[in-house]
Amino acid sequence: MTVMDEARRGRITEEVKAAAKEEGLEPEKLRRGIASGKIILTGYARGERCKIVAVGEGLRTKVNANVGASSEFSNIKIELEKALTAVRYGADTLMDLSTSEDLNEIRRLILKETPLPVGTVPIYQAGVEAIRKHGAIVDMGEDEVLRVVENHAKEGVDFMTIHAGITQGITAQLAEHPRVAGVVSRGGVFLASWILHHKAENPFYKNFDYLLEIARSYDFCISLGDSLRPGSLADASDWFQIQELLTVQKLVERCWRAGVQVMVEGPGHLPLNQVEANVVLHKSLCKGAPLYLLGPIVTDIGAGYDHIVGAVGGAVAAMAGADFLCYVTPSEHLALPTVEDVREGVIAARLAAHCADVVKLGERASRHDLEMAQARAKLDWETMYKLSLDPVRAREVREKGKTKTDACTMCGQYCVYRILPAKQTGCI
Amino acid sequence: MTVMDEARRGRITEEVKAAAKEEGLEPEKLRRGIASGKIILTGYARGERCKIVAVGEGLRTKVNANVGASSEFSNIKIELEKALTAVRYGADTLMDLSTSEDLNEIRRLILKETPLPVGTVPIYQAGVEAIRKHGAIVDMGEDEVLRVVENHAKEGVDFMTIHAGITQGITAQLAEHPRVAGVVSRGGVFLASWILHHKAENPFYKNFDYLLEIARSYDFCISLGDSLRPGSLADASDWFQIQELLTVQKLVERCWRAGVQVMVEGPGHLPLNQVEANVVLHKSLCKGAPLYLLGPIVTDIGAGYDHIVGAVGGAVAAMAGADFLCYVTPSEHLALPTVEDVREGVIAARLAAHCADVVKLGERASRHDLEMAQARAKLDWETMYKLSLDPVRAREVREKGKTKTDACTMCGQYCVYRILPAKQTGCI
Repeated sequence: MTVMDEARRGRITEEVKAAAKEEGLEPEKLRRGIASGKIILTGYARGERCKIVAVGEGLRTKVNANVGASSEFSNIKIELEKALTAVRYGADTLMDLSTSEDLNEIRRLILKETPLPVGTVPIYQAGVEAIRKHGAIVDMGEDEVLRVVENHAKEGVDFMTIHAGITQGITAQLAEHPRVAGVVSRGGVFLASWILHHKAENPFYKNFDYLLEIARSYDFCISLGDSLRPGSLADASDWFQIQELLTVQKLVERCWRAGVQVMVEGPGHLPLNQVEANVVLHKSLCKGAPLYLLGPIVTDIGAGYDHIVGAVGGAVAAMAGADFLCYVTPSEHLALPTVEDVREGVIAARLAAHCADVVKLGERASRHDLEMAQARAKLDWETMYKLSLDPVRAREVREKGKTKTDACTMCGQYCVYRILPAKQTGCI
Repeated sequence: MTVMDEARRGRITEEVKAAAKEEGLEPEKLRRGIASGKIILTGYARGERCKIVAVGEGLRTKVNANVGASSEFSNIKIELEKALTAVRYGADTLMDLSTSEDLNEIRRLILKETPLPVGTVPIYQAGVEAIRKHGAIVDMGEDEVLRVVENHAKEGVDFMTIHAGITQGITAQLAEHPRVAGVVSRGGVFLASWILHHKAENPFYKNFDYLLEIARSYDFCISLGDSLRPGSLADASDWFQIQELLTVQKLVERCWRAGVQVMVEGPGHLPLNQVEANVVLHKSLCKGAPLYLLGPIVTDIGAGYDHIVGAVGGAVAAMAGADFLCYVTPSEHLALPTVEDVREGVIAARLAAHCADVVKLGERASRHDLEMAQARAKLDWETMYKLSLDPVRAREVREKGKTKTDACTMCGQYCVYRILPAKQTGCI
């Protein structure tokens, strides 16, 4: 029995209780969400070592941090440090996107050493191993691709990006309709190359029923990858993106029929005025399946500051109903992130999620803001630090300038709360 | 004749031509905007040393950077460095908010050494000098307050925040209706204290006609300050905020009748779902007068990262019609900004403005994004750096990881554009 099966039979498991407690909701509400597919539960594959996390409608917007080494740079200790940094700064989940030689070791270490649900992108490993064994990505064998999925599941990976929506049919049209940025999903490009080379159907799409059997056996959550997401504002909401989404919609229903939990991955690069429309479309087409967004990136010219660009897009998307934000770091589009980038990326994404949660969840989220405002009016700095998303940074910033008053170096003796104390202006 | 008088008489001055060229618009369009009050022109007070900048409907969203020393920390060289840093990273205007002993020297230096329109908040100087001369802020004389305005105008200050909307009537109610964060505008608190102490009308409100005479003589632009802006999400769009705005609306009309250019300053702390509504309300009530926003700050718990919080709010506000974004730095709510904070703040605000301009201005703004996407598809790094909002940072980030390929350390040999070259996927 999968988590979804159990929920459908009306059973409230310990895992459901744990996630409900974390959200401040009744377990029954969570169970119904899981049964309907509008909520996924993750983090139960490794037992008590891992936190149970629920993602979906009516819940706190979650944040994922990507870590993982590349073919250009790999240091297993640094990747673990990145993962632990993401944990420390409040990420809800981790994805290991390694494409380095030692990717098995990195994944296993992250699974062993971190207390968060872990996701992977199996097609990366299939491609990297195909190069090593056979000389080219297009030499991936169908069985090899599926075997990677099963191996990750066996090791306790909680969710996997499966790029099943990029079919042979849609790939055949790629060269015909011009796009500014082409295909920017790495997994999508591995598969598009394979499809074009072999003139054969995407192994994930062709073998989706078999994939569902694996997913049932190990009860991991499928995250349907968006291979044809727009890679530039100019490609946003285009024919390829929406056509792939139509395929993804059918796959969501197949997952649900099989009792397998599923999320949908969303774009990508979008102008700010298309963000809400995309979220609404995804949620409507995919019947409320949890929506997992990368960014969205709302301008192409933010290189070096794409964590901020992603926060702008992510806040608007989450307010419109996106459930899960994949962080973007300052190194996006430029380099593999550093440990410091991970911190910046996690906090930026958490800020975006929280801005949206204040709107989506009301007092469940905004009480943090209220407490902060009350602490500010009292110039209670220790409480302010504690309530900040990054207490260490907040303290550092204030304390870098030695202040002579109980205010800060911005206003000093002219601090509004020193001139007109809170009680005089009716502060509550 | 003021700039507004000239525009109303149909004259297209050299200054109007310069601003129109900068915007890529017909001068006649700009002239009509200035005549109607929907656009303000600034930067002409110091002659050729200063850039002419237009702010308002249909124009690129502008970014202001606040600099200035405080009573806690003052170093004239550092303030000049901050101002020049803001210029270097693309701010459109500067405001000097100094409250230090040497505030006259700082303002004069910034006016002399920078090529951007400069704004000030005269009530700060009036308050600081009242303490020095008489012992308390509430000892500011009415004449002294107005004299500061005239002195700044004489020196060539381009725009001034005038907190005329906080009347004696509204101040009397402050203690009656509870607010979480009270009054967080520093100028507003100076005036509220004065009003409460003297049981007298706000000198700016009482003498608004005289103020308009000064503004006409020197032809500076009035920026109507929002003394009662919400200082926490809990106070957003409350009675005080909207009541003050109703007063501000009348002052806008008085400025226009006097042929004086005017902007309206807007909130403040707002939940993300109230940002658009506030912009629409301000624009509608104030008949299209340019809207100048600080932030908005869309969560109270972002201390240390408020430049990101401000970018989220600012992007949504600018997309909804806000014309002018005052930057927020990572030190907001915690300390006087450093030189590095100024860079971070300016770039974050420019990103927010650009995300909105892509929507508001169409190809006039989005061509930068298109060119960036095209450079990316070609792996043309030099062009990518050049098109980035902060080329220095973009280069640093990529080059910190030595890459062995023409891609970057994120993907290396697995870069999508190396596996499926742009031309194969129909990239244009």
